[in-house]
Order: sequence, then structure tokens, then C-alpha cells
Amino acid sequence: MNYTLSNIPERDAKPRERGYTMAMDKGLSLREVEDFLEVAGDYVDIVKLGWATSYVTPNLKEKLEIYRAAGIPTYFGGTLFEAFIVRNQFEDYRRVLDQFGMTYAEVSDGSLDMAHDEKCEYIAKLSKQVTVLSEVGSKDAEKIIPPYMWIKLMKAELEAGAWKVIGEAREGGNVGLFRSTGEVRSGLVEEILTQIPFEKILWEAPQKAQQVWFIKLLGANVNLGNIAPSEVIPLETIRLGLRGDTFSHFLDMEKPC
Amino acid sequence: MNYTLSNIPERDAKPRERGYTMAMDKGLSLREVEDFLEVAGDYVDIVKLGWATSYVTPNLKEKLEIYRAAGIPTYFGGTLFEAFIVRNQFEDYRRVLDQFGMTYAEVSDGSLDMAHDEKCEYIAKLSKQVTVLSEVGSKDAEKIIPPYMWIKLMKAELEAGAWKVIGEAREGGNVGLFRSTGEVRSGLVEEILTQIPFEKILWEAPQKAQQVWFIKLLGANVNLGNIAPSEVIPLETIRLGLRGDTFSHFLDMEKPC
Amino acid sequence: MNYTLSNIPERDAKPRERGYTMAMDKGLSLREVEDFLEVAGDYVDIVKLGWATSYVTPNLKEKLEIYRAAGIPTYFGGTLFEAFIVRNQFEDYRRVLDQFGMTYAEVSDGSLDMAHDEKCEYIAKLSKQVTVLSEVGSKDAEKIIPPYMWIKLMKAELEAGAWKVIGEAREGGNVGLFRSTGEVRSGLVEEILTQIPFEKILWEAPQKAQQVWFIKLLGANVNLGNIAPSEVIPLETIRLGLRGDTFSHFLDMEKPC
Repeated sequence: MNYTLSNIPERDAKPRERGYTMAMDKGLSLREVEDFLEVAGDYVDIVKLGWATSYVTPNLKEKLEIYRAAGIPTYFGGTLFEAFIVRNQFEDYRRVLDQFGMTYAEVSDGSLDMAHDEKCEYIAKLSKQVTVLSEVGSKDAEKIIPPYMWIKLMKAELEAGAWKVIGEAREGGNVGLFRSTGEVRSGLVEEILTQIPFEKILWEAPQKAQQVWFIKLLGANVNLGNIAPSEVIPLETIRLGLRGDTFSHFLDMEKPC
Repeated sequence: MNYTLSNIPERDAKPRERGYTMAMDKGLSLREVEDFLEVAGDYVDIVKLGWATSYVTPNLKEKLEIYRAAGIPTYFGGTLFEAFIVRNQFEDYRRVLDQFGMTYAEVSDGSLDMAHDEKCEYIAKLSKQVTVLSEVGSKDAEKIIPPYMWIKLMKAELEAGAWKVIGEAREGGNVGLFRSTGEVRSGLVEEILTQIPFEKILWEAPQKAQQVWFIKLLGANVNLGNIAPSEVIPLETIRLGLRGDTFSHFLDMEKPC
Repeated sequence: MNYTLSNIPERDAKPRERGYTMAMDKGLSLREVEDFLEVAGDYVDIVKLGWATSYVTPNLKEKLEIYRAAGIPTYFGGTLFEAFIVRNQFEDYRRVLDQFGMTYAEVSDGSLDMAHDEKCEYIAKLSKQVTVLSEVGSKDAEKIIPPYMWIKLMKAELEAGAWKVIGEAREGGNVGLFRSTGEVRSGLVEEILTQIPFEKILWEAPQKAQQVWFIKLLGANVNLGNIAPSEVIPLETIRLGLRGDTFSHFLDMEKPC
């Protein structure tokens, strides 16, 4: 840090199991990736190449190389997995992962209907090849999954081999964990946490109010995802109680003065 | 593309008459232009230097040179045309176009009152000097133009020499084609399309929901404009059915599995 | 300017006492700072390193050097001052200002409770070390300060040594001067201006509609702050009547044609 402040919440250091920040790259240039890592490389744990943007971005190999050199793992968004599945191209997908040297992958079913047994089979198969993040929750605002079902799905996916489960929110933060207004479905989150260890869940929380909500509930070291590259530094200050939104929260807990 | 997926909607290749993506540069640095073109140069067809930003940006000549070298035509936003007209400086405007080597120009009347005959005269005059895009629709949310009038204006402007007509939405996407909430005036769009060929219209659609709406109605090769530079890659995935929003749309049409 | 337009509102030239544009850097990379200054260096007067982002950004010294070389003063956001104060580290804060060669500082009480006498003492002490901007208004949307109190606080802070007083709006533009919807509390602003000279006030106005409102009320040379780096060029066009929002406003005043 650039100077010393007392009573800052403790942050696990990288590499860490909790306090993960997952950022979303939806088409950065090589120089923009370098700039992002110059500023936020110490704070970001993993980068998702959003949905199937990797299909069209012309700089994919070089970009993955920059992230690799910086020690930041990357993975393709779950929509890409689904795009291969819906076309009966699962084996092609596995080859693409190898071809680009991917060590992580996401399994999701946000844009298609898939039996949950089948989803768990994909998780099991892929987890022999890469580290799997699996995602629970629909991208369709009309599909409301009740809390007991979120828990059942998350448990089964972790047992099938998922390293962490992701709570779906999209880039916009308006489905899944969130109402269409962006408001957190708080009862849902609290019930999930009675059954699933919080370090196993990566919460998608692209909007600042959502990040604040999770940090107030679960502390500085909650796993948060779908963070825009330019918002990783702001998020880190929220984690540390150094932005207005959480300024009093941590001080009240620790009574520093 | 970086890998092969079956059943992807067909996209016309550049240079193309339909499937245009017009991006808006509202003050990029030279390096940002280079970064933008590295990532999105294959997908963007034309770049608008938003409204009259060209008056104040200090890097104008060098920037135009970068776009030119990449084969991407540029034009000044229609508000600049109007700024010259309202000051009785039309001949100065023509000289500015020549001075900067512009080969496209926009004629609009979104911020001032102009008889439509007069507007068509400007289109006719300028179309002898450059390729003209003309814009229909007011920037004023209070001015509601009925559908038959949109059609009459568009027809007259194409006849006067406009290469394409633009449906106004502003950078915010909340006027003209759209209600103040950003919702598409869908009846208006459908009625226009009964009379004007869709390849002659460039729809301003800065918001994702608007892009999705047009792509679902008119397909992957609809002309869309006022796209932020960082949103050209996301838009391309929406056109190809590779983002959640249009994932099922094209598959349902083509029944790939 | 790149070409000549008649009847453009007069803008004070830099260095200036009015017409200030304060931009917020919330974690730019060094190259992004260079890009920002290439485009907007002629228009931005001062840069705030937002809230306590300076605590976590790894490139702080080098970044400050770039701004310094370009002649753009910088200061740390008021939340950093408050973070030191709430920890009883005021003397550490003074040393940090010296260590980084800061010549400006912000004194605020948006995230903590502080007697106003105490705030004015901090302003008095710091104004012997640096040029002080002090901020009035809470970050808490629940705390409504009546107009007579805004005036009383602003007067006292200017008398205590503040160079300018800032009207609080946050990065989001939804508290203090603004209702939670972002709408300007216009009666409040008008009453303040009956008592405080407008060149002494820097209005935080991150949203375009807010910038437009202030420019229509107070003219091209109003002091505006919390402007995103990429919005400095757009703001300059609004000041000059060269964007739709203020296009007619200045023309109607000056009757150019």
C-alpha cells in the first residue's frame, strides 16, 4: 500500500481461496489488458472472457498469453460452453480448451434447457481436464428458482467436481440473484449460506450496490464476480472500508477510535 | 474466427451494404483508436465523430489518418452540420469537409427547425461532394413524429441523394425511435419497414436491449449505429446468436439439433 | 479549435478562476492518463484521485508525476482525509500529502460525524500547507441539509481558508445536490447562489443532465466536478452549445442569425 492506515479489514493474500475478484473482459485490446494488469493485477484473481466474445476477438492467443505471463488464470464464459453443447459439439469444445491451453472452464445452463444429471456429467467430465466453475441460475428473468432448489443444485454440482459455484447475475446484474431492478434477493442468499460454505460460492455482482451488499453481509473476503476491469480498484476500496458505502461498516465492527 | 461453431447466422463480409455497424467516437485518444481497431476493426463499418466533438478534440487530423489507414470511413455528427447552418456558415462547412478530406457527411435537423425542402436541398448539394447520411427524428423528446411522416421524410431524403437514412436515437437511446424509457416504438419501426428497404436504414440503437430488438426483428445483418467502441464486439456476438439474448432466437429458426 | 464557428460562448482560458472542470481518476493506468491528457488536457483544470483509491493503486507516484508534468494539479478524495481522521491519524495525513508532493487537499465530512467547528479547524490548518477544497453535503441520501444550512456551512468554510467549496453528489450523482433519482434540487442551488459567489463553488455533476442544468443556469464557465475522464470532451461541447442539449440555449441568448 502507498501509506499506512490502521484498522483496515484483513484481506487474504493471493493466491487465495476466499476474497476472489473475478473480472470480465468482454473484448479488451492487448494494451488495455496490460493497463488493466498494471493497475489491478494485485487484486484480480481470475478473468472471464465474457460469454462467447472469444469467438470473434481477433487477438485471443496473444491476450491469453499476457494474462498467463501475469499469473492470472482465464476462462471462457459459460455461454460458449452452451453454444457448443446446443450444437452437439462437446468434443470440439474440449479440443478448443486444449488448443488454447485453458486450465479453467465454466459449465452453465443459463440459455438452454438441460437435465441437471446431464449438467453434472459435463462437470464431472470436464473436471478431469480443467478446473470447473459451474453456474446456477437462469439468464431468463422469468425463471425463478426457489431457494431450496438453488441449494440442491449447488450441492450436486460441487459433488460432481465443480471447484466453485457461481451465482448468476449476467453482466447487467438484473437476473438470478437479483430482481429486475438490480435489488438483491436477500432471503435467497441468506438461505443458501446456511448450507453451502461461502468460500465455495462466487457471487456475480456487477453493480456497486450489489458488491456493497455482499461485503456488508460476508466481509472483505467474499468472492465476487463479473466485475468490470475499471471497477476492480473501486471494489478493492469497498472491501477495505475505504469508500463511503462501507466506510462506517468496518469501523463500527472494530471500534478503532 | 478462433474456432468453428456450426449453424452460425450468415454475416455479409466487409465491404457490405447491410449488416453495417456504425460506432461513435466521442473523443478517443490516438492509442484508443488503435486499440479499438485492433479489436473491432473487422466488425465496424463506419465511425461517427459524435455531434461536434471534432471542434474541440486536439488530435483530429492524426485520428482521421488512423481511421483512413485502416480503411474505416468517418463522418462528423449531424449536430456539427446544424451548428454551421444555424450560423449561416454552410459554405464554411463544405470547406471544412474538404480540408479534413471527409468523404461522408451527415445532414440532420434534430436541434433546429428547418423546412424539409431546405433539408433536401442540403442533401442534394452535399451529395455531389460526399456520400450523405441523413437523419430523421428529433432530439427533443416532446416532438413526436407520426409513422406516415417518418416514411414521407425518409423517402424524400433518399430521393434527394442520401445514401442511407438514420433513425435518430441520440447517444442515450431515449428519443426518436425510442420512448424516454429506452423502449422501442415498435409499431413505428414496423410501419417504416413496409415502405423503406431495410438496407437503406441505419438504426441508432446504443442500448443492448434495442440492439437485441432490431436483430430479432431484422436479423444478423441489420444496420445499427451509435454503438460505443467497447460494445462493437458484444454487438457482434448478439448478431451471431452467441450471447444469451439471442442464443435461442437463431437456433429456433434454423433447428440445428 | 479545428475550425471556426461564430457566436460560440466565451470560455475563460486556463489557468482560470471559473469554468473549472474537475475530473475524477478512480484508477487509470499510466497510459490511460497520458491518453486522457492528450485528448482533454486543454480542458481539465484539476484531477481528483477518487475517494481512497490512492491507497490501493500501485502506480501512484508515477501517475502523479505525469499529471504534474502536464501542469494539472491533483488531490486525494475527501474520503481519504476522513479515513485518516476517523483513525486519529491527522498528522499522518499531513505527512502523506508532503510525501507525495500534493499541493491541494480536500476536507469533507460526508462519511462521518464531525462538529463543524472541528471541520473548520482542519480547513484552517491544512490551508497553511496546501490549497484546500472543502465539501458540503452528506453521502447519506437520508441526511437532508436545508438550504440556509448549506449557505451557513459554505460561508464558514470559505472564511476558514477553503479556496473553493464543493457541492457533494458522489460519483453516482444521486445524493446531496441531487435527489435519489439524479434530479437536481434546483431550489437549493438557486438559494445558495443568492449568498455565495458562483466562482467559489465547484458543483459535482457526474451525469449529463446535471451538467446541462448547471450550464443553462450559470453559463459556460460554471465550475463542474466528478466528471469521468472520457466525458470531459463531451462536457466541453455542452459548455459551448455544441451538443443538442444546449444547442439552442446559447443561440437564443445571443441571437446570432
